[in-house]
Amino acid sequence: MPDTPQLHSAVVAAEGHLVDSQQLKAIFDKVIERGGTFEVLHFNLGRTNDEFSKLTLRVNTATAPALEDLLEELLPFGCHPFDVQDATTRVTDQDGCVPDDFYSTTNQRTHVRIGGTWVEVERQRMDAVVVVVGGRAICRKLREVRAGDRVVCGLEGIRVTPEFRDRTRADFGFMTNEISSERRVEASVGRIAALMRHTRQRGKKIAFVAGPVVVHTGGGAYFIDLIRQGAVDVLLSGNALAVHDAEQSLFGTSLGVDLEAGTPVVGGHRHHMRAINAINAAGGITGAVASGVLKTGVMVECVRAGVTFVLAGSIRDDGPIVDTVTDIVQAQDRYAEALQDVGLVIVLSTMLHGIGVGNMLPAWVPVVCVDINPAVVTKLADRGSSQTIGLVTDVGLFLHQLAISVAEDAGSKKGGAVGEDAPLGSKS
Amino acid sequence: MPDTPQLHSAVVAAEGHLVDSQQLKAIFDKVIERGGTFEVLHFNLGRTNDEFSKLTLRVNTATAPALEDLLEELLPFGCHPFDVQDATTRVTDQDGCVPDDFYSTTNQRTHVRIGGTWVEVERQRMDAVVVVVGGRAICRKLREVRAGDRVVCGLEGIRVTPEFRDRTRADFGFMTNEISSERRVEASVGRIAALMRHTRQRGKKIAFVAGPVVVHTGGGAYFIDLIRQGAVDVLLSGNALAVHDAEQSLFGTSLGVDLEAGTPVVGGHRHHMRAINAINAAGGITGAVASGVLKTGVMVECVRAGVTFVLAGSIRDDGPIVDTVTDIVQAQDRYAEALQDVGLVIVLSTMLHGIGVGNMLPAWVPVVCVDINPAVVTKLADRGSSQTIGLVTDVGLFLHQLAISVAEDAGSKKGGAVGEDAPLGSKS
Amino acid sequence: MPDTPQLHSAVVAAEGHLVDSQQLKAIFDKVIERGGTFEVLHFNLGRTNDEFSKLTLRVNTATAPALEDLLEELLPFGCHPFDVQDATTRVTDQDGCVPDDFYSTTNQRTHVRIGGTWVEVERQRMDAVVVVVGGRAICRKLREVRAGDRVVCGLEGIRVTPEFRDRTRADFGFMTNEISSERRVEASVGRIAALMRHTRQRGKKIAFVAGPVVVHTGGGAYFIDLIRQGAVDVLLSGNALAVHDAEQSLFGTSLGVDLEAGTPVVGGHRHHMRAINAINAAGGITGAVASGVLKTGVMVECVRAGVTFVLAGSIRDDGPIVDTVTDIVQAQDRYAEALQDVGLVIVLSTMLHGIGVGNMLPAWVPVVCVDINPAVVTKLADRGSSQTIGLVTDVGLFLHQLAISVAEDAGSKKGGAVGEDAPLGSKS
Amino acid sequence: MPDTPQLHSAVVAAEGHLVDSQQLKAIFDKVIERGGTFEVLHFNLGRTNDEFSKLTLRVNTATAPALEDLLEELLPFGCHPFDVQDATTRVTDQDGCVPDDFYSTTNQRTHVRIGGTWVEVERQRMDAVVVVVGGRAICRKLREVRAGDRVVCGLEGIRVTPEFRDRTRADFGFMTNEISSERRVEASVGRIAALMRHTRQRGKKIAFVAGPVVVHTGGGAYFIDLIRQGAVDVLLSGNALAVHDAEQSLFGTSLGVDLEAGTPVVGGHRHHMRAINAINAAGGITGAVASGVLKTGVMVECVRAGVTFVLAGSIRDDGPIVDTVTDIVQAQDRYAEALQDVGLVIVLSTMLHGIGVGNMLPAWVPVVCVDINPAVVTKLADRGSSQTIGLVTDVGLFLHQLAISVAEDAGSKKGGAVGEDAPLGSKS
Repeated sequence: MPDTPQLHSAVVAAEGHLVDSQQLKAIFDKVIERGGTFEVLHFNLGRTNDEFSKLTLRVNTATAPALEDLLEELLPFGCHPFDVQDATTRVTDQDGCVPDDFYSTTNQRTHVRIGGTWVEVERQRMDAVVVVVGGRAICRKLREVRAGDRVVCGLEGIRVTPEFRDRTRADFGFMTNEISSERRVEASVGRIAALMRHTRQRGKKIAFVAGPVVVHTGGGAYFIDLIRQGAVDVLLSGNALAVHDAEQSLFGTSLGVDLEAGTPVVGGHRHHMRAINAINAAGGITGAVASGVLKTGVMVECVRAGVTFVLAGSIRDDGPIVDTVTDIVQAQDRYAEALQDVGLVIVLSTMLHGIGVGNMLPAWVPVVCVDINPAVVTKLADRGSSQTIGLVTDVGLFLHQLAISVAEDAGSKKGGAVGEDAPLGSKS
Repeated sequence: MPDTPQLHSAVVAAEGHLVDSQQLKAIFDKVIERGGTFEVLHFNLGRTNDEFSKLTLRVNTATAPALEDLLEELLPFGCHPFDVQDATTRVTDQDGCVPDDFYSTTNQRTHVRIGGTWVEVERQRMDAVVVVVGGRAICRKLREVRAGDRVVCGLEGIRVTPEFRDRTRADFGFMTNEISSERRVEASVGRIAALMRHTRQRGKKIAFVAGPVVVHTGGGAYFIDLIRQGAVDVLLSGNALAVHDAEQSLFGTSLGVDLEAGTPVVGGHRHHMRAINAINAAGGITGAVASGVLKTGVMVECVRAGVTFVLAGSIRDDGPIVDTVTDIVQAQDRYAEALQDVGLVIVLSTMLHGIGVGNMLPAWVPVVCVDINPAVVTKLADRGSSQTIGLVTDVGLFLHQLAISVAEDAGSKKGGAVGEDAPLGSKS
Repeated sequence: MPDTPQLHSAVVAAEGHLVDSQQLKAIFDKVIERGGTFEVLHFNLGRTNDEFSKLTLRVNTATAPALEDLLEELLPFGCHPFDVQDATTRVTDQDGCVPDDFYSTTNQRTHVRIGGTWVEVERQRMDAVVVVVGGRAICRKLREVRAGDRVVCGLEGIRVTPEFRDRTRADFGFMTNEISSERRVEASVGRIAALMRHTRQRGKKIAFVAGPVVVHTGGGAYFIDLIRQGAVDVLLSGNALAVHDAEQSLFGTSLGVDLEAGTPVVGGHRHHMRAINAINAAGGITGAVASGVLKTGVMVECVRAGVTFVLAGSIRDDGPIVDTVTDIVQAQDRYAEALQDVGLVIVLSTMLHGIGVGNMLPAWVPVVCVDINPAVVTKLADRGSSQTIGLVTDVGLFLHQLAISVAEDAGSKKGGAVGEDAPLGSKS
Repeated sequence: MPDTPQLHSAVVAAEGHLVDSQQLKAIFDKVIERGGTFEVLHFNLGRTNDEFSKLTLRVNTATAPALEDLLEELLPFGCHPFDVQDATTRVTDQDGCVPDDFYSTTNQRTHVRIGGTWVEVERQRMDAVVVVVGGRAICRKLREVRAGDRVVCGLEGIRVTPEFRDRTRADFGFMTNEISSERRVEASVGRIAALMRHTRQRGKKIAFVAGPVVVHTGGGAYFIDLIRQGAVDVLLSGNALAVHDAEQSLFGTSLGVDLEAGTPVVGGHRHHMRAINAINAAGGITGAVASGVLKTGVMVECVRAGVTFVLAGSIRDDGPIVDTVTDIVQAQDRYAEALQDVGLVIVLSTMLHGIGVGNMLPAWVPVVCVDINPAVVTKLADRGSSQTIGLVTDVGLFLHQLAISVAEDAGSKKGGAVGEDAPLGSKS
C-alpha cells in the first residue's frame, strides 16, 4: 500500500468478457503500477461462457494529474468514467497538428459520444486522432488533419471495447500467440487453411505480406500455387520480392543453381541489376508481363490473377523498379487502401512490412506471422496486437504445406452446399 | 573431373595477396563450381608477408557462353583476362536504363582501361554502372543514368582489386568478422575505440547508423556522451529514433518508468504521438530545439554539436516528423552524400538502415555492426562486405563501455604529439 | 457451446488472488479446452488489493472420465473439490514404481488432507510423488520410492496454492518474465542487486548456476568480485566451467590473447587438456589449490570463500576432472542438497544446468535467468516456473554491472541498522 | 613487421591441397598472430585440381619458447618439422595422468613415427593422447591411461593431415557449412538423402543423434518411416526423447491434443511421470515393448528394427527410465562404441548430444546438423569440425521431406545393379 494519502478519486465502469480477455487483471495492475489504490464497488462475473461481466471500481491517486493520467491509461482496457458526457472536441488551427490533449487511438473498437449518441469510430487503427464530421467519427493520421478539423480531445465520452478472443470459435480457438519453434507445424497449417476459408465465407479478403525470403527458401512455387487456387487477394511487399522473383525468372539456370545451393552466388548481383534494368526498360512489371519479358514468377501470377499488389520502397532498395512506391507516405496510403475489406493477414518473413501493416489494422483482423526467427514473431505479436498468431518455422516448407492444405480443404468441400462451406477459391 | 570435353579456354591473371585474401581458393572454387577445369600456368607466392603473389591460370569450359559467364564471375576476385584491351562502352538511349551487357559493379576498388590508360573508378559502390565522362570513370546508380551516357559493358578492360585485410595493421588486425556472443566484449570495445581514433587521424569522419533500440536499452545517455566527446560526425537513422528520443525527453516521468521497467507501457502510444505532434508543431527538430520544446536527448545534442543527421522514412513510420525524408530515393541520395569522407561506420541495432548504408560503401570503409541478435550481424556481414566487424552484445551496455573507452583513449593521448596520436575528439 | 450433452458435473472451489494470478482465466480456459461447460455459482472479488477472492464453480462434461481428467487438470490452478475428504494413499509394492493413479506434484505449495488435517507437503518440487510418513507428507522422486511406501493417489484431499506475485513487493515488483533484448539492463541489474540483499535479509542463500560462457565473455573477474563480496553461497555448474577457468588461470598468456581476441585459438585444445591433466594429477580442484597448481580463478575463490560447489557431468565433457560428479542421479541429489535454504537462484548462460535446477525448486524461489539468447530465457521461463525473471543480455557485461551494483548497494547500507538493511555481504 | 629481432628459426614443410583446404592461409595467419615472421623457401602449387601442392617455409620468432609454441600450433595445419625424427614417448607413472608435454590430438588423420616408420593413429578423435603399444599408435582418453603406458610427447615425429573437402565429390560437393535460414531446404534434403545412400554404399552405418524436439514437432512419424526404410542404424539420444515418445504413445488422446495445439498442456507433467512409471515397472523399454505396454513410437520401432540405441543421462532428466545410462563416463564409452563404423551422423535438434558426439568423431565422418536455431548449428560447426553441414530449418518438416526423399531415392534405384547403386535400405 502506498505511503502517500490517496485523496483524488474517480469511479469507472467496464463490461465485457473481463476475465477471459484479461482486462480485469490489466486494470488492477495499471492502478497499482501508477501508484494508486482501488476498491471494487461492484463486480458481477458472467455466470456462463456467454454472459458479460460488469465492474464498477473506485480508483484513488495522490494528485489530480496522476488521476487524469491513470484514467487515460485505463481507457484502452475498456474502463470508462462512470458519469457519461459527450466527447470534447477542439478545432485545429494548423495542418498536420492537433491540440495537446488530443485523444490518440488504439486499434480496438472505439465509440465516441456525440450529441448524446454513441457513435462507432470509422477506419479504426492505432496512433490516429478522431475527427468528428457531422454525426460521424473517423480515424485520421496526424498528417491528414487539416486546419479547421474538429478533433476529439481529453477522455470524456470515449469508450474502448477490447477485442475478445472467443475460445469456442472454431477458427481462432486455441491458437494462441505463444511463440515456440517446438511445435508441430502441420497442425497449425491446417488451422490456418481453415481460417482462410472462414475469412472467405465472411466475404472478406486475404492479404499476404511477404519478404524476399519467400523466394530464397524455394517458397515461390508454392505461393504461385496459392495464387492459382484463388487464396491471395492482396500482396503487400517491397522492391526486393519483385526483383528476386524476376531474377529467378529471367536467369533460370544460374539462379537455379543458386536456389539449389542455397548460398549466395558471388557475382549474382549482376543478375539482380539486370533484372531491374530489364523490368524498367519494359516500363515496369505489368509492361514486362505484357511484352513477354517476364514469363513466370510470383509477380507474373499476381498480374494474371488480378491480385492487388503494392510494393513499398525502403532505404535498402536496389533500383528500385518503377512499380515501387518510393514515397513512404504514399506507400502507407496505398497499403491502407488495399487492406480495406481484408479479414485475414498472413505475414511471411518480413518484419518491416509486417509492422507497417500491423500499425494499420484494427484489432479484430487476425494476423498470422510466419518466420524462422522467433524474435520477429515476438516483436510483431508485441505490437499490442492480441490478434497475432505466431508460427516459428521455415517459410519455404510452410508454404509447401499450406498449398497442400488449402487444396485439400477446397477438395473436401467440393460439391458442398453454398455459403458456409464454400471452398476457399470461390471469391464471390 | 567433368565428363564433358572442355574445349573453350582462356588465360587469366591475378596478382595481390592472393593467399591471405583467400582469392586463390575462391578462384579455384568458382571454376569447379561452374563445371570448368583449370591449369596453373604460373604461380609465384610472395616470399614474405609484404610481397605480392602472382598467378597465371588457364580455365576451360564446355561451351563459349559458359566461358563468358565464368570470366565474368572471376572478375570480382581480381582475375582479369591476360590480354589487355580497352573497356567497351555503349551509349544508352533511355533514362534509367542501360544496354543488356552492362557491367554491374562490386564494392571493390575497380579500374577501367580507357584509351590505353587504367583509370580508377570514382564513387565506388556495389550494384552501380560505370559511366565514362571524358577520361574519368564514375559509378552511377541505374536511376541516375541518362540517355546519351557512355556506359561500360562486357568484361574487357576492367580490373577489380579485392580489399586485403592486413593482419599486421594495428586497427584492423585480428578483428575478424566471426560472429559469436561468447566473446569478451570489453576487449573488442577497446579495439573499436582505437579504430575510431585512427579514422580521425586519417582525416576521415565517423558515422553512426542507429536504431531506436539505442534509446530503449538506455544507451541514449552514453551516445550523448560520445557526441559531446566529438566522436560522432554523422548520424544516419529513421523516424523512430528521433521520435523515441523526443518521447523520452518530453515525457520524462512516465517514460522514466518505461525505461526502468523495460516493458512497453500500454497507452504509451499517446506519448509517442504527442511527441510527434509537438515536434511537427514546432516545424521539426531544429525548430523544436530552437524554441525550447526539446531540451535534452540525442537529437538535441546532434543539433548543438553540428552532427550531420539524415532520417530516412520507412513503411512502419508513425507520423512521421517533418525532418524525415519520406521519399527513399531522396533519402538514399542524402545518406550517400553524408557518407562522403566517412572512414568508419558503426551500425547499432538496425538491420534496415545498416543494409542500406552497406550498399553505398566501398569495400575499404570498415563497418562495425553491433546487435544482440547474431542473425542481424551475420546478415550484414554476408552482404559481401568483408569489411564488416560483428559484435553480438547488448547495445545499451556496449555504448556505456564505448563512451568510457573513448574517454580513456582520449585521456591517455592528451598532451601527446600532434598527428599520429591526436585524441579522437580533435576533428581538425 | 458443445453439441454433446454435458451430463456429468462437479462443484469446485478456489480462493486467493484469483484475478491477479490469472487463475480465474486459466480455470475457465481449461474447462472450455477440455470440451466442458461451467456455471459460476458464487464469486466474490476481493474489494481491495489485499483481499482474497473466492469462487465456487459447477463444471460439466459429457463423460465421467472426462470429468475426472478435468478435475485433475484444475487442481494446479488451486481449484479443489468442494466436498472435502482425506487424501487417498496406496502402498507401493516395487522399488522405484508407484500405483497407476499416483498424484504427480507441481512445484506449487501443496497441502494434503491426512486424518482430517491439512498438512503442507515438505520438500516441494515438481514431478515428484507424495509419500505419507506418520502425519507428514513429503515429496519423493520416483526413483526414491521404496516398496511399502504409502503414496498419495487420486485427487481427493489435495490442495494446490499457486504462487502469487505480489505487485507491491519492492523486490519482485514489476519485474515480469517478459523476454526482450530491447530493455535497459542497468535498471534490471539494480533490481537484482536489491533482490539479492532481500534474500540475504530473509536469511536465505544465493545460488548461481553458471556455464563456461561466464569465463569466455570475460565475466570471470567480476564473478570473482561477487564471491569476494560474499554474494555467492552456492555454485552449481559442470565440468566445463572449472576446466575453462583453470585453463585461463594456468595458460595466462596464450589464453590472455584468446580472451582478448574472443576467438577460439586453434590448438587451444592442448591447453584445455593440459589443465585437466594438471588438476587431476593434483587430485582435484581442492588439491590443486592447496598445492599451488591453481592460484587464481573462479574455482580458487570458491575454495577460499567456502562456496559450496557441485559440478555435474554431461555427455560432452572432456576429461572430466575428478571433482565432476559423473553419475547424474548422484549429481541431482547433490544439487538438490545444495539448494536447501536457497532463496534466490541466478542462472548465467547455461540452459542445461538451469533446467536441471528449475526442476528441483519450489515455485516460491525466484530464478533470474541471464542469457544473450532469448530462446534460452524463454525456455527456462516456460518450464512452468512463474518465478523466472528473464534478462536477455551479454553475460560478461552483466556481471560487470552486477559487481558494481552489489558493491554500491552494500556501500549505501554500511553503518546502517542491523536486520532489515544488513548489507549483502554479511551472511550471518 | 614486428619490432623485436626474430632470432630463432625453424624450417617446416607441408603438402596437400594447401590452397583448397585453406591451410596455406591458416599457416601464414598463425605465424603472424604469434608475432613471428616467415619466408617461403619453396612453394609448388598443384597445377590441376588433382595435384598436391608443396610448401617449405622458414619461420622465425623472438624467443626459443615462442618457436616451440608456434611449431606446436602449426602442427594441426599439416605443417611438420622438416627434419624427421621418431616421436618421443614417455612412460606414465599415474593412472589417468600423463607427462606435462603430452601431445593432445586433433580429430584429423594423424601419423606417428615409430622406429623409423610412419604409423597411422588408430581410433582417431580430438582431445586424446596417443599411446604406443608395440608398433601401433592408439588414441586414448586421459581417463583411460594407465600407469606404465607409453605416451607420445613433444612435437617430433608427428604428422597431421587435415581433411580436404573434395569439391568434385557428388555427395559432399558444394554443401558448405555456411549457416543460413534463407535457403531452400528441399534442395539440401535431396543431397542428404544422396549422402545417406553413398554412406551405405561405402559399407558404413548411419547414426542419428536426436533430441525430444523430434517428437514435439511431429517428426516422430517420419522418423519411424526412416527406421522402417532401414535408414537408421544407430540412435544416440537421452532420457527425454524416450520419455516424450512413450508419453505420446501411451496417452494418445490428450497428447494428440497437445501435439495438435503445439502448446504445453498444464498438468501434462502427469503423463510424463506416468510414462516413466509405466516403463520402469516393465523393466525398461525392451520389457515394455515385449509386454505390450509400449505398442507404438520411435523407441518401439528401434527395438523391432534392431537399431542400436544409447540414452545418455543428463542433469535435467526426469526419472530417468532404467534404460538411461546415468554415468556419463560410461555413456560416453557406449556412444563411442556405437559410433564405430558409422560413416554419417545426422544431428536433430540437440546441442548437448551433438557436441558430445562431435567430440568423439574423426574429421572424416561428415556430420549434418539440423536445428531451427542458427546459434546451435554455428556452435556445432565451430567445434573445429570442418565436416559439419548445417541446416537451419524446422525439424518436423525436415524429417517429413527426408522420409519422402529417401523413399524416392530408394525407388529410383530399385532393380538397379548391386554395389554402387544399392538402395539405402539394403544394409548388407
